Amino acid sequence: MTDRQLHLNVNMLSAGFYGSAWRASAGDPAAFTDINHYVKLAKIAERGTFDAVFLADSPALVDRPEFRPFYTLEPTIILTAIAAATEFIGLIATASTTYNEPYNIARRFASVDLASGGRAGWNVVTTADAVAARNFGFDNAVAHTTRYERAAEFTEVVTGLWDSWEDDALVGDKATGRFMDTSRLHALNHVGRFFSVRGPLNVPRSPQGHPVIVQAGGSDDGRALAARYAEAIFSVANSIDEGKAFADDIRRRAAAYGRPGSAIVTLPGLATVIGSTEEEARRRDDYLWSLIPADYSLVRVAGILNVDPHSLDLDEPLPDTIQMPIDGSQTFFRALVEVARRDRLTVRQLLRRLGGGTGHRVIVGTPEQIADDIEAWFRAGAADGFNLMPDLLPEGLELFVDHVVPLLRQRGIFRSAYAGTTLRSHLGLERPANRHTIKERLAG
Amino acid sequence: MTDRQLHLNVNMLSAGFYGSAWRASAGDPAAFTDINHYVKLAKIAERGTFDAVFLADSPALVDRPEFRPFYTLEPTIILTAIAAATEFIGLIATASTTYNEPYNIARRFASVDLASGGRAGWNVVTTADAVAARNFGFDNAVAHTTRYERAAEFTEVVTGLWDSWEDDALVGDKATGRFMDTSRLHALNHVGRFFSVRGPLNVPRSPQGHPVIVQAGGSDDGRALAARYAEAIFSVANSIDEGKAFADDIRRRAAAYGRPGSAIVTLPGLATVIGSTEEEARRRDDYLWSLIPADYSLVRVAGILNVDPHSLDLDEPLPDTIQMPIDGSQTFFRALVEVARRDRLTVRQLLRRLGGGTGHRVIVGTPEQIADDIEAWFRAGAADGFNLMPDLLPEGLELFVDHVVPLLRQRGIFRSAYAGTTLRSHLGLERPANRHTIKERLAG
Repeated sequence: MTDRQLHLNVNMLSAGFYGSAWRASAGDPAAFTDINHYVKLAKIAERGTFDAVFLADSPALVDRPEFRPFYTLEPTIILTAIAAATEFIGLIATASTTYNEPYNIARRFASVDLASGGRAGWNVVTTADAVAARNFGFDNAVAHTTRYERAAEFTEVVTGLWDSWEDDALVGDKATGRFMDTSRLHALNHVGRFFSVRGPLNVPRSPQGHPVIVQAGGSDDGRALAARYAEAIFSVANSIDEGKAFADDIRRRAAAYGRPGSAIVTLPGLATVIGSTEEEARRRDDYLWSLIPADYSLVRVAGILNVDPHSLDLDEPLPDTIQMPIDGSQTFFRALVEVARRDRLTVRQLLRRLGGGTGHRVIVGTPEQIADDIEAWFRAGAADGFNLMPDLLPEGLELFVDHVVPLLRQRGIFRSAYAGTTLRSHLGLERPANRHTIKERLAG
Repeated sequence: MTDRQLHLNVNMLSAGFYGSAWRASAGDPAAFTDINHYVKLAKIAERGTFDAVFLADSPALVDRPEFRPFYTLEPTIILTAIAAATEFIGLIATASTTYNEPYNIARRFASVDLASGGRAGWNVVTTADAVAARNFGFDNAVAHTTRYERAAEFTEVVTGLWDSWEDDALVGDKATGRFMDTSRLHALNHVGRFFSVRGPLNVPRSPQGHPVIVQAGGSDDGRALAARYAEAIFSVANSIDEGKAFADDIRRRAAAYGRPGSAIVTLPGLATVIGSTEEEARRRDDYLWSLIPADYSLVRVAGILNVDPHSLDLDEPLPDTIQMPIDGSQTFFRALVEVARRDRLTVRQLLRRLGGGTGHRVIVGTPEQIADDIEAWFRAGAADGFNLMPDLLPEGLELFVDHVVPLLRQRGIFRSAYAGTTLRSHLGLERPANRHTIKERLAG
């Protein structure tokens, strides 16, 4: 065993990462709204001693509902049902800083954290899509820069509220009738550009202090936010060099805030298609691709590149006119354009290489090949672990847990049992001290 | 058995209705943040075949934290944990229309509804307290009229979103790849004074259609909102005449919207202190009162009456200068002033009569006395049931379930087993048809 240990999350994308997952023989079209589906996935992941389950989200009916189910049940509701049925696994959900109020988000995630004994994580996103904006009074997506400025202030307010009760605030002395030590309870009195929030929160700290802060944006603004607040990062990287460069950049930026490199765990996305032979894995991949309608991925990638789908030809390279954006969903845009140009791919090849146009890396192979790949990235410092996106759920996750996890354990890079009960414990993150307690200690 | 059946909810106010509940020998000071406490209460209520558990809420640390725990864990998180541990009992949570966005509330409650197999209810409140306002960018409480205008539009948007998927929208045809019938999916395109919401929602309808709408405000604006939307009403009534007058008024107002009287269930609040003899019940009540600090209730009642606590004398009647408000929390204010003047009570007597100044009726007695009272109100048409507030939790609820429920069953007015699995089934409410399906039927 090395000291440094790998971290694994599973991204629970309804019936699986492939758009066609629900059409596969093992797929359940109604899985996306079935709470038992998510509970089942979490139990499998817990059997594989994963760090956490992860739920992406947008408050909208996104993608193309005539073909594919996407974000549906509100993620903290799913996580709470999972918390009731599991003991160890971490619970990370996405919530938007653009379409929520910080008091509500601080309280909701603190509640999941307490209800799960300290297993919650909040994935901070700014929600780029225009479809969501139109559910919240905007005609179009809120501008990128504004979203990130709001996100930074939002996160500052949330973390401030999470510290509004010191750990020993609750007294509960029946004899004297003293319920709380109000000197351990702190108003926030935040007044900023976007928010005025007095506080204190009405929820105490949890066994892990407060929920782990996760971040997923790779734009310059996204990295700046991550460097300041994120404790785990769900990133996009398509080569070891890219993964290393990202990790180095984030840790260099974090150092400017006085944060040590060990305070941040990087977890690139990784889609997996597993077969007992490489040939079998390729056949599985072909099968899943054959179930995706010809125009579905094209519309999807055109959406990310912000071009008319008709301007793309499946058997030609990306048009030269496509320029890197100055605003918008830069992470996935950049990944697509860089890989397409580097490897001189047609649009069809690009779609298939990058998860149907999502920008995430796809690996098709045997358990050994996947374990080799994971180990290589981990040892090179290109990743502290992965946010896994199995092709089909639960099947692809079961294959990973039963056939890849044992190899990672044999190689001494992944746990065989949980050492603690909180998400911070799994991720090797320290329990954060309360800011007011620190201040008092320094003054004392 | 009569046809008409009684309905019972339990209001899960942390350690109990009495401010001193956590100080009682059976009380747990930390119960308010313990998810297992709420799950335990729900299991007891389900054993008693209650219609639902109920959670009041405000997004703030209200009341006096140095003495009493109040609203804490976010209610839909608590309900989801309960859903995972129970099979039948309804799950009603409060959420504010003033400090949320309708898309988020529609989605969250629809998610709880699906996760519980159709057991959710949303208690619509406008959140009068200034403490909450200050967590959301306001210096003081939003004006009463504005809150209710927003609440009406908010509820209209939420119910519209709940109808955005017709029941048969999900097709999931693996052979053709057709996931949804998009002709059964409807954008809302709401543009109003407070909200612009395009929709559709990203959550389908549940086994009960959509969550039950509950309402709790008794002001004129509150009654108008209830008459239009509410399917269950948590009201305040301190006499059978008052209960009847309220029920009659609501049903008369509802008729103006074309809603039949049977579409609304009235549930006045009722705090209970149970003893095996009347003497024992009175001793229990005295004991709980003895644990409440002298000034606590005074500050509380002064807050409701919007006067300086120093202007009140415990052993004098309410000052004549106290006038009915034209704005604010009218329900409780009115209840307090009316009872005080009618029965010529001192402030101390008033506090004790009306649940420590909350305005809710308190009954102290034997199981027979309580069953008699409940039956009398029910048969007189002053209540379709009650929102029960046991003195201590879980103890007071256990006493009710074990000693009062059997009497109500013997008298043929309360179920011995659940007839269905949804909250609508328990409350005798019809499953609402989808508005688009109705429109099509009418056109066809």
